Amino acid sequence: MKWRIVKGEKEDAMKFFELLKENVVFLFTIGNTKTAEIPGITVAGANPELIKYTPPADVELLYYGKCKSIDAIPATPDGKPTPALITYTSLRLTQVPFFVVDSGLMVKPKTPYISIGAPVGGNIKDGQAMSVEEVKESFERAKKLGEHMSKLADILVIGESIPAGTTTAGAVLKAFGVKDAVSSSMPSNPVELKRSVIEEAVKRVNSSDVFDVVAEVGDPVMVGVAGIAVGSSKPVLLAGGTQMAAIAHIIKKIDESKDIAIATTVYVADDDTADIAGISPVTVMAADPGLGDSVKPGLRAYAEGFVKEGVGAGGATLLSYARGFSKQEFLKEIEKDYECIVEFA
Amino acid sequence: MKWRIVKGEKEDAMKFFELLKENVVFLFTIGNTKTAEIPGITVAGANPELIKYTPPADVELLYYGKCKSIDAIPATPDGKPTPALITYTSLRLTQVPFFVVDSGLMVKPKTPYISIGAPVGGNIKDGQAMSVEEVKESFERAKKLGEHMSKLADILVIGESIPAGTTTAGAVLKAFGVKDAVSSSMPSNPVELKRSVIEEAVKRVNSSDVFDVVAEVGDPVMVGVAGIAVGSSKPVLLAGGTQMAAIAHIIKKIDESKDIAIATTVYVADDDTADIAGISPVTVMAADPGLGDSVKPGLRAYAEGFVKEGVGAGGATLLSYARGFSKQEFLKEIEKDYECIVEFA
Repeated sequence: MKWRIVKGEKEDAMKFFELLKENVVFLFTIGNTKTAEIPGITVAGANPELIKYTPPADVELLYYGKCKSIDAIPATPDGKPTPALITYTSLRLTQVPFFVVDSGLMVKPKTPYISIGAPVGGNIKDGQAMSVEEVKESFERAKKLGEHMSKLADILVIGESIPAGTTTAGAVLKAFGVKDAVSSSMPSNPVELKRSVIEEAVKRVNSSDVFDVVAEVGDPVMVGVAGIAVGSSKPVLLAGGTQMAAIAHIIKKIDESKDIAIATTVYVADDDTADIAGISPVTVMAADPGLGDSVKPGLRAYAEGFVKEGVGAGGATLLSYARGFSKQEFLKEIEKDYECIVEFA
Repeated sequence: MKWRIVKGEKEDAMKFFELLKENVVFLFTIGNTKTAEIPGITVAGANPELIKYTPPADVELLYYGKCKSIDAIPATPDGKPTPALITYTSLRLTQVPFFVVDSGLMVKPKTPYISIGAPVGGNIKDGQAMSVEEVKESFERAKKLGEHMSKLADILVIGESIPAGTTTAGAVLKAFGVKDAVSSSMPSNPVELKRSVIEEAVKRVNSSDVFDVVAEVGDPVMVGVAGIAVGSSKPVLLAGGTQMAAIAHIIKKIDESKDIAIATTVYVADDDTADIAGISPVTVMAADPGLGDSVKPGLRAYAEGFVKEGVGAGGATLLSYARGFSKQEFLKEIEKDYECIVEFA
């Protein structure tokens, strides 16, 4: 099976799938939260110093097929490559136009990028992530961006890259009273560490206002994605896992009428710790890039619970399938890119 | 007459005019050159300190109908309003999507904007404006932007805002061996001052390579506009006066096949000092916003030789006409905005 519906009505999911055959704009909303500096909380980077380079390097890969800010492509400490690789293959095959949104980056990418004036997020373990004023100002700018971008497309697809984003997502979900599901890019998900960070952070939340909650325990990427989606006059497909579930709640709290859905990978959908069906307030579709059948161990690792999702990989996979690529073709093309970019780099 | 052909074949001009009825993306490529710090060279700002705020304030006006970085809208020292006002009216009427490109700004706008990593331009009177490396890197990023943006549109329209841009344009034209026409936002064009700056600057040019010339005596907005146009897979309408003529030369030197034209105002076209027909290597169309018939003295000043053009005003006027607005309607709407934004601000 190329993809399946994890939550929601078939009619709604099919509507989004069909829209992926029309004019698509893919946006990559990327940023940083200092929550990633908590030892052991993320593997989105080969070592702690490299973590902050992961978001810019991810989008450099998308634009140029190589990274400019760091020598190799982002990887886990034991060498499993960034999911941006899957997204790169899809964008190369489909030739869909895409843009990068700086939603609170520590290091700017060496690509064109759109600024919405978002701050780097503070470590939610230590205190408020962003000021409410910063959140509202960036949200407004992102909304304007969504308004203008959506005039050019039939659907916006939004991916993300923010190390430790699953932890801030867990905190926002908990603050909203949704189960504090915590997904991870590790099979040995450091659930206890994340739970304790989340617990400590959420204790500080003393308001049910969505902007107050995001400012206290969220991250800047949430602000950017939510703003773009709220400003959009067209349906928006949130390409990601539990982070997009948290953002879907944010969007619905701001504007219940927004037409949104989530597209993720089967690796997230199959992860009981993530419980994406349980925590998402909207339709969830899960695409299978078929990496379990890959001849490359670095890609097979995804099917074994590593990395799983990120940089819009699930949505990008769905996009390739909507554009008529078969599962075999898509996997072969990913492997080809893996050889060029990872093995012969 | 709403508009006229100043240079080129009717067939070519009509092709661009018809394309303005299709999917249009308007880009505002804005930046700064320290050449504007030469006393008396520009009136794009009520006083020297405010000049650097003119580009960001211009685009804030386009997005919000008011400025955020400064209290009032940009104006000349004696209060003549920025041409962004005309562009604002057109964008409001046509609802065309637009984006801002930071092409070397001193002060970032409080709007979403796209960065291409361009530097602020140095004062060409004193030495090299930018390093060749900076020029090439920004050009490449702008090219990527043009490549992706043009997938979403049938035509790109590009406007600019850079105080003292007519002086750097004059220098690039002279370095290319084109007549050093110098237009200005003043009827008493300080031609002698500009000529002496240009002369001094061009003496340093010792290469005929287009990137070397732009780096030595150009400005960063030229780099952004040229990069976007070269990357575009669709026709590009350069909305501006002599600055766009210089940029058209740059584009043609890089890629002779690019399908470009210039749209400006009749106020530039009627200015013999500018000689836009003489210096442009491509088709030139001139639109008449009819400000000479305005009941507002601040707007009538345009027809008397002040301000004349900028922030894509000529192209924006042409866009409104292509979308079916009459000259009377358009002027009435500009006056309405003038009342709201300038008089009751």
